[in-house]
Amino acid sequence: MENKGKVVLAYSGGLDTSVAVIWLQSQGYEVITFTADVGQRIDLQGARNKALNTGASKAYVMDLRGEFFSDYIIPTLRANALYQDKYPLNSALSRPLIAKKLATIAKKEDAVAIAHGCTGKGQDQVRIEICANAVNPDLEVLAPVRDWHFTRDAELDFAREHGIPVKASLETPYSIDENMWGRSIECGALEDPWMAPPSDAFLWTVDPWDAPDAMENVEITFLKGNPVALNGEEMEGVELVKELNAIAGKHGVGRIDMLEDRLVGFKSREVYECPAASVLIDSHRKLESMTLPKQVLSVKRDLESTYADLAYVGYWFSPLKDGIDAFVDSTQEYVSGKIRVRLYKGSAVVTGAYSKDSIYDHGLATYSDGDSFDHSAAKGFIKLWGLPIKNWRQKHPEEDKNELFKIGMKAE
Amino acid sequence: MENKGKVVLAYSGGLDTSVAVIWLQSQGYEVITFTADVGQRIDLQGARNKALNTGASKAYVMDLRGEFFSDYIIPTLRANALYQDKYPLNSALSRPLIAKKLATIAKKEDAVAIAHGCTGKGQDQVRIEICANAVNPDLEVLAPVRDWHFTRDAELDFAREHGIPVKASLETPYSIDENMWGRSIECGALEDPWMAPPSDAFLWTVDPWDAPDAMENVEITFLKGNPVALNGEEMEGVELVKELNAIAGKHGVGRIDMLEDRLVGFKSREVYECPAASVLIDSHRKLESMTLPKQVLSVKRDLESTYADLAYVGYWFSPLKDGIDAFVDSTQEYVSGKIRVRLYKGSAVVTGAYSKDSIYDHGLATYSDGDSFDHSAAKGFIKLWGLPIKNWRQKHPEEDKNELFKIGMKAE
Amino acid sequence: MENKGKVVLAYSGGLDTSVAVIWLQSQGYEVITFTADVGQRIDLQGARNKALNTGASKAYVMDLRGEFFSDYIIPTLRANALYQDKYPLNSALSRPLIAKKLATIAKKEDAVAIAHGCTGKGQDQVRIEICANAVNPDLEVLAPVRDWHFTRDAELDFAREHGIPVKASLETPYSIDENMWGRSIECGALEDPWMAPPSDAFLWTVDPWDAPDAMENVEITFLKGNPVALNGEEMEGVELVKELNAIAGKHGVGRIDMLEDRLVGFKSREVYECPAASVLIDSHRKLESMTLPKQVLSVKRDLESTYADLAYVGYWFSPLKDGIDAFVDSTQEYVSGKIRVRLYKGSAVVTGAYSKDSIYDHGLATYSDGDSFDHSAAKGFIKLWGLPIKNWRQKHPEEDKNELFKIGMKAE
Amino acid sequence: MENKGKVVLAYSGGLDTSVAVIWLQSQGYEVITFTADVGQRIDLQGARNKALNTGASKAYVMDLRGEFFSDYIIPTLRANALYQDKYPLNSALSRPLIAKKLATIAKKEDAVAIAHGCTGKGQDQVRIEICANAVNPDLEVLAPVRDWHFTRDAELDFAREHGIPVKASLETPYSIDENMWGRSIECGALEDPWMAPPSDAFLWTVDPWDAPDAMENVEITFLKGNPVALNGEEMEGVELVKELNAIAGKHGVGRIDMLEDRLVGFKSREVYECPAASVLIDSHRKLESMTLPKQVLSVKRDLESTYADLAYVGYWFSPLKDGIDAFVDSTQEYVSGKIRVRLYKGSAVVTGAYSKDSIYDHGLATYSDGDSFDHSAAKGFIKLWGLPIKNWRQKHPEEDKNELFKIGMKAE
Repeated sequence: MENKGKVVLAYSGGLDTSVAVIWLQSQGYEVITFTADVGQRIDLQGARNKALNTGASKAYVMDLRGEFFSDYIIPTLRANALYQDKYPLNSALSRPLIAKKLATIAKKEDAVAIAHGCTGKGQDQVRIEICANAVNPDLEVLAPVRDWHFTRDAELDFAREHGIPVKASLETPYSIDENMWGRSIECGALEDPWMAPPSDAFLWTVDPWDAPDAMENVEITFLKGNPVALNGEEMEGVELVKELNAIAGKHGVGRIDMLEDRLVGFKSREVYECPAASVLIDSHRKLESMTLPKQVLSVKRDLESTYADLAYVGYWFSPLKDGIDAFVDSTQEYVSGKIRVRLYKGSAVVTGAYSKDSIYDHGLATYSDGDSFDHSAAKGFIKLWGLPIKNWRQKHPEEDKNELFKIGMKAE
Repeated sequence: MENKGKVVLAYSGGLDTSVAVIWLQSQGYEVITFTADVGQRIDLQGARNKALNTGASKAYVMDLRGEFFSDYIIPTLRANALYQDKYPLNSALSRPLIAKKLATIAKKEDAVAIAHGCTGKGQDQVRIEICANAVNPDLEVLAPVRDWHFTRDAELDFAREHGIPVKASLETPYSIDENMWGRSIECGALEDPWMAPPSDAFLWTVDPWDAPDAMENVEITFLKGNPVALNGEEMEGVELVKELNAIAGKHGVGRIDMLEDRLVGFKSREVYECPAASVLIDSHRKLESMTLPKQVLSVKRDLESTYADLAYVGYWFSPLKDGIDAFVDSTQEYVSGKIRVRLYKGSAVVTGAYSKDSIYDHGLATYSDGDSFDHSAAKGFIKLWGLPIKNWRQKHPEEDKNELFKIGMKAE
Repeated sequence: MENKGKVVLAYSGGLDTSVAVIWLQSQGYEVITFTADVGQRIDLQGARNKALNTGASKAYVMDLRGEFFSDYIIPTLRANALYQDKYPLNSALSRPLIAKKLATIAKKEDAVAIAHGCTGKGQDQVRIEICANAVNPDLEVLAPVRDWHFTRDAELDFAREHGIPVKASLETPYSIDENMWGRSIECGALEDPWMAPPSDAFLWTVDPWDAPDAMENVEITFLKGNPVALNGEEMEGVELVKELNAIAGKHGVGRIDMLEDRLVGFKSREVYECPAASVLIDSHRKLESMTLPKQVLSVKRDLESTYADLAYVGYWFSPLKDGIDAFVDSTQEYVSGKIRVRLYKGSAVVTGAYSKDSIYDHGLATYSDGDSFDHSAAKGFIKLWGLPIKNWRQKHPEEDKNELFKIGMKAE
Repeated sequence: MENKGKVVLAYSGGLDTSVAVIWLQSQGYEVITFTADVGQRIDLQGARNKALNTGASKAYVMDLRGEFFSDYIIPTLRANALYQDKYPLNSALSRPLIAKKLATIAKKEDAVAIAHGCTGKGQDQVRIEICANAVNPDLEVLAPVRDWHFTRDAELDFAREHGIPVKASLETPYSIDENMWGRSIECGALEDPWMAPPSDAFLWTVDPWDAPDAMENVEITFLKGNPVALNGEEMEGVELVKELNAIAGKHGVGRIDMLEDRLVGFKSREVYECPAASVLIDSHRKLESMTLPKQVLSVKRDLESTYADLAYVGYWFSPLKDGIDAFVDSTQEYVSGKIRVRLYKGSAVVTGAYSKDSIYDHGLATYSDGDSFDHSAAKGFIKLWGLPIKNWRQKHPEEDKNELFKIGMKAE
């Protein structure tokens, strides 16, 4: 058999990627696996051993949680990026990181290609391929599950034939992906949009009616746009997110249920649980509403949406993403302060905000003693503010006879 | 004293506008009052009598709830308009309607001016003046409270002197405005953004922990973008909103707490309770996510924000608002179906959506039997989709030595 | 040979589509051709005869100039749609019309497919396929030149072998497409962006230095957004465009030279000559600047750009395009008046605008007698307009010692 | 008379500001003048002497051309900022610089206020006041011409009375402002939008028909977004702009004629001549179209428009402007290369572009030998790209009987 050279495979240890190891070998490739801890429940050493046992010539395992937090989660949080105003991009964010590592290992190992186990209808194939080529444009990307048309049954047969355990993959009716920023659930009963997501779809969050009867306040401290403390206690990002996931999840907070427009042209019903992400984005937004002027909030809102689109469609490593990062960074200088969030029975409500850098000005806002606003300026302001409308109506008089008639009928 | 002619005053029966009646008379005007029922708790006949007793020469009273629903609430709901993504514009929406009626009565009565009781720092002065001039550009607008610089104390003295009852105005620590679309609360303890809104600020919604322990599902039916039935029962809009306010309010749903950027240049802490508005907008959005293509959702999102800005700043009667209405109308043809919302302890969660006009396609979305998606098309798609990034990197190679070094350190 | 049924082929009479007739027949299809006059120089009967002689079983020919003007050019002009602010979409606009007719003939003829002669790297394959499926989603679309990988040489051999004349196709170094809205030129020397477009690339416009030495004024009259008269003489759209192409082309007006971003992922150097389109869009914009308020102009500008993108990428028949049409239509009610354009040596300059519906107000604008603007209102306006900046600086004082130092050095 | 302290007056030496010196003194102020050279034709020492002679206690004069170029013109050029897609902001850009210097001198001199000679209907009052307060929010800003309601006649009387020469001010029928970035002309005959701008309105540009009969090519070299050389010769920015103004002006290039929407609520007919600005912005855009990806161009286009708005309305010193600068800066890394512009009889046409950093890829773009584009990928791409439309039509079939009928009538 022809020796086609090395391929670096993104390897989770599950059915799809285990089958891929053997299949790629059967095609003449030497397979090197790469497995990352991005905060999902994973046994890195176990994955390593399994990969080597399945036939990988080498198995990279890396704890990438710190890098995932600082280089992927943080910029996304600063950008309040939610795809279609709902999805915190949890799964989408891990793909560029994984793709980057695949491309880097490929370079180090002098591999001819990288490979992933995605199918042809998801988003992840797009993200991994484009992000890998954004790091190394000359790298070939193999997608055995998609391009060699394995059906589910063929895959199971192939696995049994080669002694790959298949039990776990059949246990859940859902397709799951998780990392520290959230858990994505799709398929099964969720494919009917009229059906409420069943309780068994969720793992990180309790049903609201099973949440504690007592509300709980949690305080998030931000420094220049980044979360740095929980309830007054400073902690590293990975720790902070983990702890907040636990606290908010316990109160049933962070469930998202949406009909999402995929890049590949159709709508899909997606369910997520993202307790920490939800609370942090809401808190960050509240703090921005206190520290940033209206115009900045308005333009940033538009760019946030574009940013989420970029992350969603695989354009994480792109000049436009860099440009929006530069914009966002310039706005975060004063986004410092603390936010109080009340967790209770499935909801997280921001109940207080404080910042030394607040531009909320009590003197201007108050209607009580201490009012520093110049009321008389309003008259001139309104006059000019309304001038275009007044002028428009002078040119285009509206004869609304019905209106007069209506008054006539109802008059005293 | 010079006879200055007739003025039509927007009259609520409260302190400010009662003082205004007398003050305007003292300036030589004949005062005609106008009082509207837009769904707030009001005794129209009582207001009429009080106005006449205070010295008005004539007192118009009108039940405008139907017109308010169909001409102001409905287009706003179809546009999912939320100012700064939060405020359903409840108070903002009633101003153009009131301004229009003031202008029309002024025409009928041959009045020389209209008048309102707003101060110089709110939004309502802007909305009433600009909207009135949008209907009749030659109409003078008087703002006695603002332009003649009544302080609160002077106003109270003036009221007592002229036998106007002042008790009610001192009872609440908050400044309140309400109509069928929501209740606005500001001032008092709310002016400290770190303080959680006290329970006594709310009237339409219970505290979540006082809400029923049993969840309740409510089903909203939309026809071409408009809500037409509640729990399967068809009803008129005014009735539907009233009933939904009661149901959702009982579950503590619809509280909004925000730092809002006013047109007149400062931030203000505003609290709203809008049970029906919140549930309806969420439901309408969900139904749109099922029936409208991604591109329409994306462009509509931008126009929705502009629409909310227009309503907020007094540009309700404007060519741009008409243009966006035309866009929105063209999108609502297929926005028909039903939405299930679960109300529980302060939260309203959409748990199901159904539409005959759904463009969610199970055959394309499913990963199970019946998959009709062409997986092989994905390969070519990704190739061209990612071409610009690949090309960019080929022209601008990225030498990231640190990256390789990091891998080197962590490699197997 | 298997009889595969009827296919309707978009037929120009040139090399590519003549080859396609024979090739499709050789694959077992009965070929019906469709040839349209959209204002290019074409002999419809000649095309019909050639098609039948080449082996088509039936040959449709249609003069679509009127429909092209009213349903494709007019909405695009009202939207001032220019792709990347430059390209008037001339070629792009004819594709949806052709695709629609192909789909309709296919229905009438009970054909199993339609076919076109586009290659795999242009835009037109996208437009025809998507637009045809937007009319009839179940229609198969064949692209013989693209999908059966004819190289240029193979095509020429095939043509000679089957007695198809090939002379014309080799005469020009450029690839050309034309219709009444413009002429598109690409390939050849133009592929080097540093090289100025050679004179022989142009047919409708003279080189500016060969244009008449005398300037010429032309007056365009618009009624509710549509051009209805030239130099005061009312004429049908097809006639007006034809005449304006001649007049403006004679003065060297309407050449466009750009690096255009194609949907399929790369940049292409494109040259167009669109004398009438350029003059009409400029004139229409000028008239809008006189008759539409600032806010409408600003939002319309954004939608215009989206509109051009839709037309460019094949989304002409789409709900979003319908929505933007509705917006645009609502704005054109008062876009009536006349525009004077001065043509001279390659440039077209708008030198005058007049409209009964002008909202330019001399009384407000003038600095001379008749000034009706309230200067004193400006003081209050500026105070509130600038409040956010003032407030920002009070919270965030800027210590700029360098600045003071600079003054110090230069002071008197 | 009360001594009100020092005021720093923006002083041009013309009628308005000379009157202001005396008037402010008569009000009890000690007047310090400030005169800047921003590239207009000015004799700084003459202005200084005149100020002192008119009664100023001190007269600052500064050559700010270098600072104006690097800190105001350059960022605006990098942002391709044109207000309403036309106005290069020449006058608007000098105001923040002047305001900043006024505020800084006020600090150094311990002045209580600054003052300017603007009227109440222009933009410059807004820009100077807001920009001065953005530098020093506590500074009072006096506008004697506006706030003390001098009419033109009263001003002339006052001037004669106090021995101020008035001749120059009456010589031109236009109101003029100029600096190195352009010349603004308004008033007089220009207030009639149907009248073509008379030749005597222009000073920097010849009438096209008086321009040389020979065309002239000029080559601009950019380095990371900034113009650095003219015709291959490196030069400082101030010099480059001056020379380009001369060259392009000689060919009648750079005239702009527009109906402009003022912030203060009305439209004004404005004429500019900006030869260098026009040529540089066009050239910069062309180079960006060669070196930046489509997505960056598209988002940057929107931000460019916002940027121009900010500069126009006085928000130069603002957090939003800083944010957009950060975005723009991140995009300019590769905007290097040279552009050839052909000047001829009033028009400037970009005829060539070259960049080492070009992402135009001849291999992808060519239809000739060397084509590196994967044509077969297009099929899959179009399939998914068009899927939403196809899916839409499957759900919402369009029965267009007229269409079929039309074909029927015209069929062969």
